[in-house]
Amino acid sequence: MIIVMKPNAAESSILAVTQYIEKNGLKSHLSKGEEVTIIGVVGDKSRISSENLIVYKDVDRIVPVTESYKLANKKFHPEATSVKVGNTVIGPDNLTIMAGPCAVETEEQLMTIARAVKSSGATILRGGAYKPRTSPYSFQGLEEEGLRYMRTAGQETGLSTICEVVSQEAIEAAVKYVDMIQIGARNMQNFILLKEAGRSGLPVLLKRGLCATIDEWLNAAEYIISEGNPDVVLCERGIRTYETSTRNTLDLSAVAVLKERTHLPVIVDPSHSTGAYKYVPPMAKAGVACGADGLMIEVHNDPAHALSDGPQSLTFEKFDKLTKELKPFCDVVGRSFE
Amino acid sequence: MIIVMKPNAAESSILAVTQYIEKNGLKSHLSKGEEVTIIGVVGDKSRISSENLIVYKDVDRIVPVTESYKLANKKFHPEATSVKVGNTVIGPDNLTIMAGPCAVETEEQLMTIARAVKSSGATILRGGAYKPRTSPYSFQGLEEEGLRYMRTAGQETGLSTICEVVSQEAIEAAVKYVDMIQIGARNMQNFILLKEAGRSGLPVLLKRGLCATIDEWLNAAEYIISEGNPDVVLCERGIRTYETSTRNTLDLSAVAVLKERTHLPVIVDPSHSTGAYKYVPPMAKAGVACGADGLMIEVHNDPAHALSDGPQSLTFEKFDKLTKELKPFCDVVGRSFE
Amino acid sequence: MIIVMKPNAAESSILAVTQYIEKNGLKSHLSKGEEVTIIGVVGDKSRISSENLIVYKDVDRIVPVTESYKLANKKFHPEATSVKVGNTVIGPDNLTIMAGPCAVETEEQLMTIARAVKSSGATILRGGAYKPRTSPYSFQGLEEEGLRYMRTAGQETGLSTICEVVSQEAIEAAVKYVDMIQIGARNMQNFILLKEAGRSGLPVLLKRGLCATIDEWLNAAEYIISEGNPDVVLCERGIRTYETSTRNTLDLSAVAVLKERTHLPVIVDPSHSTGAYKYVPPMAKAGVACGADGLMIEVHNDPAHALSDGPQSLTFEKFDKLTKELKPFCDVVGRSFE
Amino acid sequence: MIIVMKPNAAESSILAVTQYIEKNGLKSHLSKGEEVTIIGVVGDKSRISSENLIVYKDVDRIVPVTESYKLANKKFHPEATSVKVGNTVIGPDNLTIMAGPCAVETEEQLMTIARAVKSSGATILRGGAYKPRTSPYSFQGLEEEGLRYMRTAGQETGLSTICEVVSQEAIEAAVKYVDMIQIGARNMQNFILLKEAGRSGLPVLLKRGLCATIDEWLNAAEYIISEGNPDVVLCERGIRTYETSTRNTLDLSAVAVLKERTHLPVIVDPSHSTGAYKYVPPMAKAGVACGADGLMIEVHNDPAHALSDGPQSLTFEKFDKLTKELKPFCDVVGRSFE
Repeated sequence: MIIVMKPNAAESSILAVTQYIEKNGLKSHLSKGEEVTIIGVVGDKSRISSENLIVYKDVDRIVPVTESYKLANKKFHPEATSVKVGNTVIGPDNLTIMAGPCAVETEEQLMTIARAVKSSGATILRGGAYKPRTSPYSFQGLEEEGLRYMRTAGQETGLSTICEVVSQEAIEAAVKYVDMIQIGARNMQNFILLKEAGRSGLPVLLKRGLCATIDEWLNAAEYIISEGNPDVVLCERGIRTYETSTRNTLDLSAVAVLKERTHLPVIVDPSHSTGAYKYVPPMAKAGVACGADGLMIEVHNDPAHALSDGPQSLTFEKFDKLTKELKPFCDVVGRSFE
Repeated sequence: MIIVMKPNAAESSILAVTQYIEKNGLKSHLSKGEEVTIIGVVGDKSRISSENLIVYKDVDRIVPVTESYKLANKKFHPEATSVKVGNTVIGPDNLTIMAGPCAVETEEQLMTIARAVKSSGATILRGGAYKPRTSPYSFQGLEEEGLRYMRTAGQETGLSTICEVVSQEAIEAAVKYVDMIQIGARNMQNFILLKEAGRSGLPVLLKRGLCATIDEWLNAAEYIISEGNPDVVLCERGIRTYETSTRNTLDLSAVAVLKERTHLPVIVDPSHSTGAYKYVPPMAKAGVACGADGLMIEVHNDPAHALSDGPQSLTFEKFDKLTKELKPFCDVVGRSFE
Repeated sequence: MIIVMKPNAAESSILAVTQYIEKNGLKSHLSKGEEVTIIGVVGDKSRISSENLIVYKDVDRIVPVTESYKLANKKFHPEATSVKVGNTVIGPDNLTIMAGPCAVETEEQLMTIARAVKSSGATILRGGAYKPRTSPYSFQGLEEEGLRYMRTAGQETGLSTICEVVSQEAIEAAVKYVDMIQIGARNMQNFILLKEAGRSGLPVLLKRGLCATIDEWLNAAEYIISEGNPDVVLCERGIRTYETSTRNTLDLSAVAVLKERTHLPVIVDPSHSTGAYKYVPPMAKAGVACGADGLMIEVHNDPAHALSDGPQSLTFEKFDKLTKELKPFCDVVGRSFE
Repeated sequence: MIIVMKPNAAESSILAVTQYIEKNGLKSHLSKGEEVTIIGVVGDKSRISSENLIVYKDVDRIVPVTESYKLANKKFHPEATSVKVGNTVIGPDNLTIMAGPCAVETEEQLMTIARAVKSSGATILRGGAYKPRTSPYSFQGLEEEGLRYMRTAGQETGLSTICEVVSQEAIEAAVKYVDMIQIGARNMQNFILLKEAGRSGLPVLLKRGLCATIDEWLNAAEYIISEGNPDVVLCERGIRTYETSTRNTLDLSAVAVLKERTHLPVIVDPSHSTGAYKYVPPMAKAGVACGADGLMIEVHNDPAHALSDGPQSLTFEKFDKLTKELKPFCDVVGRSFE
């Protein structure tokens, strides 16, 4: 941490800061410039509420120099992590395709979709049983019944399964039925849920919050890992910007940034980010090209009558065409894709 | 709802849409322009997943014309709501000041602050017992012990009390100790928590999410009210933008917009939005000037050593100066302020 | 400037950086922490392209500690500046109201509006003769003819006058007819235009760009001042965010921030920022409450038939009501208002 | 255009709107729902200031249904446009690589870089002679001298050349020396400059503004084309968001959206958008994968000592490696790349 003093800070102000630092068992390094004095702080910063130093007289700015996440940090864990999900593995050398409906609607619908996505190359079946919806009057999901259908579909097809959870109760149910749980964008900073996910024993797909910084996202992953669960996969799903041509703005640079900062696998969701099925194929390809370890894609047997997010769902034909088109990209980037 | 067809949409495409609408018990009105055909939909839109119509051939756009929130909507409830909190009332003719520390630290600290804010004119004591923090390694709050201190401080000073809740467990504890619960920005779309707050029996302060639209915010309020709890107060606390000079960007226009759209009281939080004590007084005054029913302000006996959010906390002297300066603004806008 | 090295940076990497710094006549201060080494740089930073140091081996981050604007900086010019515009003055102890139509349409229209806004208390007449419009097919303004009408209206009513300029040619025309020129949001980083405005001899109202940071805005002011023109007034007019309930998001915190960072007067434009006449009065009051030196408000004799921005224009009655309501706010904040 | 009336709008209010529409030679279609009445407007909307209708009594919302840009619109010009630049062509079946330094510094530097990028596969040399810089104290470019070096470098290597212009004067100079001009992000809505570019006779690369919507961007292209210049190429270069890990957020979805809306070629600039050389290769590949017609990449012989934007510049080695890696992507997407 660096403390930048104001120009012409009084000696007494500088002394007050260094005394506070040293009283708490840390060391200070003074660097007096012509314009400003800078105080470097060395030691265990958790001993002080460092942001508060801004309140000290003549302090201009506090500049942190180390990240607050450790377990998710590539600096301390340089090799890429791979995460086992049921009978498949996410990262670092293959491309994982998670596909399925936004919401589980009926057992028959789910089974039909599961067979279709399996035959096109998906290895993980996605399907929402607990749906966070903007309006209380929208369809909220089949809950545990939906999870049961997921288990059946997984068993019949050999696909691994993933389901979003929104509460402790949902996690407890999910543990019984699926192979991976998902924390959705709206719950990325629901720290209670993150801790519970960390204690669930299941691998966790952590979606980026709609306005979360990459730093906040990695801190959210840290919540899960620090509860003893190292199996975290990150999923970029678009951030909120002023542009309205797409539902959100898919931030593919985040994939490149994450590959520098963390050892965790990274998945891209071109369906929720764009909100329109037409834009899913080009964004899926771009995701693979820039280094994603996998894709999460919504597929529906009848998008026009889907109970949730129909506009962004691919039909079976479009999904099959896309996976065929993705294969040569996998070859170029050197990822296997069954 | 209006469906805008593409230029030169085929007759068969138009027919497919109108048949779908009418098959579901709704009526369609056709308006054929020189460039485009428009289909108005009349009836109970909850019968169809209207967004899916975008998937129909030759459909260009779907334009909703009614809001999805009803109970929070001023159109159906024109008079301003006032919300009773302990022995005080929020809205519509007075200015409520909620003040206190970001986090409850010790009983003594809380009591000292409670007495100070009471003597300066606050009527509700705020204090965090469950702290959502970006990093798992930051101070997370005293939990139930903090709530107990809140009750004691309320009883001794006569202040009503408010505390943030982050889980069902926290709500159950809060019900025993405080007069109002707060749903924080990070949980604004934690729909499980919203429903539980709606069943708690306590009035709820609902903070705006960091990147929530006003429409989403009112839908979140709808979740609470639709569980049978009409006592919802909205709190603008800044939205995330690209500007970094303040922690977030306080969106005071939202106060004016809310006054058009909803009957619920609106509070402004100049502390979390700006993140800097210097900017709290001007933003508090601006909040009152544009019509807010109250303010939530962080006050601390020793900001430099606060366990959370010291930089934005006012000292007792600064808070007292501010409340004195706010009085003439209350006179101008015609609000009482004890 | 501070250079933060990566953890375990090689000695040779640190040496390379310090040698580069010292070779260019600057001094370096080393601060070795347990985790990272920090290099403070002292001296005239304009001698090096400091951002490039990030390219050096083992450099993690470059942290600037001084602002790049000097002439606009309150640190070096603590007293508030007041700017003379025709026969009136902007800042620091009065409230200036600029009012008039978005676009000058006819001489008669302008004269009618000028008389109305004068009688309600405005001291500066605004009116657009060169209109930057999103579409090339929208009305683009009367150009020099419009400026002539502005001069006539100013002379007849005694109002000072302001007009937006979009080119060198427009500046040359404006100098002949009006008392102040305005650089609009879209041209805030049109550096050629800024320099020309700096050489025009007229005071300049510099609107904030739609996505300009406060720092970029002050640097834009620096362009004008560094050409020898100290008469710059800043105008907050809303920034672009994801929220669509208002056209832009009025950032009133920026007023408070500017009052800390610069000595230049600050004006608030509640018309363009909200885009809706209903929201103009509350935002105008909030602007005064948080310390603005003036307001820019659009007024039109017949908003429903205005050639530009009708929806946000106040009628004469609404404008007169607003100025009457603003007076007590001026009394509270201690500003004179004729 | 659709006019949505408020619930329970008075008959007289509906009549006032329809009379205004019909008085101006347009036709109205009424659609009365149970909740709201909708008025469709048919005919030449340029006859009325349609946005003003919001001011009419009981009008709730105005919904435009046609785009304001025509010449840039794919609806009216379905085949993809290709743009000739010197002796090369941009779009639709090849991948154009523009490369070179951010700023032209010396003739020798430019020549060295030109030879290197040519040998790695670039067909257009980029180089800034007029640099828009945030601070007036930063290097502003060599101006006409820089353009002369560009011409020489183009002639010696056979590369076509492109240079940013910031004023009418710069355009007049550029016409003499280079093959294509660029309108930078900060000038995307400098409508005077757009019109001048439209009359220049040179093809124009139009960069997206930092906070421009895709709709505004296409309207800016319309300004150029409507002056008689059809040779416009769009360049996505990142938009401003809250995320600070990259300089801007590269919006690759915009490429997919543009391919739906316009026939103009689209280029991606991974250098300015990310601001960091490490992120250039993955984002360049992603750009090709999602359908871009070309890339603009900054290359410098000595990034650590570049006068502008060193941190994002590739060295010759890195650039050569990247172009080699891009070739298989071109094969997959079916684009030729020399």
